[in-house]
Amino acid sequence: MEYNAKIVNRLKRSKGQLEGVLNMIADEKDCAAIVTQLSAVRSSLDKAIGLIVAENLVECVQNNQNGQDTEEEKIQQAIKLLMKSR
Amino acid sequence: MEYNAKIVNRLKRSKGQLEGVLNMIADEKDCAAIVTQLSAVRSSLDKAIGLIVAENLVECVQNNQNGQDTEEEKIQQAIKLLMKSR
Amino acid sequence: MEYNAKIVNRLKRSKGQLEGVLNMIADEKDCAAIVTQLSAVRSSLDKAIGLIVAENLVECVQNNQNGQDTEEEKIQQAIKLLMKSR
Amino acid sequence: MEYNAKIVNRLKRSKGQLEGVLNMIADEKDCAAIVTQLSAVRSSLDKAIGLIVAENLVECVQNNQNGQDTEEEKIQQAIKLLMKSR
Repeated sequence: MEYNAKIVNRLKRSKGQLEGVLNMIADEKDCAAIVTQLSAVRSSLDKAIGLIVAENLVECVQNNQNGQDTEEEKIQQAIKLLMKSR
Repeated sequence: MEYNAKIVNRLKRSKGQLEGVLNMIADEKDCAAIVTQLSAVRSSLDKAIGLIVAENLVECVQNNQNGQDTEEEKIQQAIKLLMKSR
Repeated sequence: MEYNAKIVNRLKRSKGQLEGVLNMIADEKDCAAIVTQLSAVRSSLDKAIGLIVAENLVECVQNNQNGQDTEEEKIQQAIKLLMKSR
Repeated sequence: MEYNAKIVNRLKRSKGQLEGVLNMIADEKDCAAIVTQLSAVRSSLDKAIGLIVAENLVECVQNNQNGQDTEEEKIQQAIKLLMKSR
């Protein structure tokens, strides 16, 4: 599967935000600000995961134009991955 | 609020894992492995958030031994932060 | 979209579990037991949501064999629904 | 632990919403509307869980005015329940 730049940039931003949180902790900043930042990183990661499992499922279904068993099995695996990732 | 080493180390590990995921994406690794790693980072962040909001709430209640209004207000804010962070 | 019996039964069970929790609360049962039950209902609902958005996305892609714009638009809407449901 | 009316009413509303969703499914309503309703029930349950674990933790800390071991153990259990419930 190819990962588009949108996902890569999102993960790089998340990494930068995590670095920022580590600095806030070193400076003993207010915990509400730290929790807000960490929650933003968590939901950004969740979005990246959602995009990957959705695009993976779309690809599996598109590759299954002729309904072969192996392809159908891949669709079920893609749905399983989507469920597990929630 | 003081942040114990457990939380700081957890966040540093999460940052390292994110770097690892970016390398996996550059190598176009299988998406199931990438989703599994990202899910692990997400749940590690969620644990860090949970520890911070729990310890913050405990501190606010402990500081409120003499039941002053301002302290009670801090407890309600700590509960609100906990709810928002879920 | 047709909803299979698996999803309907899961929701009926969740409703029954909720009734059970209301009885546990009336009996002032231990909060750990109540939280465990509520968490089980929450994750069961999350699974039902995951199954619905996944099957919806598969259907949209399968209906898009001839790549018409309107169908592609439906795929994007199905991905958006999946993301929003997380 | 005593459960306030706010939590009980929230759970009763959630149960009613679930009944509503089962009717929507029987009427084969649009899946986006069903997913939106189910997501609302899920987040309402999550709020109820958050209120219960927060109030439980506050109670444990308040009961621990004289710092006895058994009480400290209860605080740690309340934090564990909070973490597990996320």
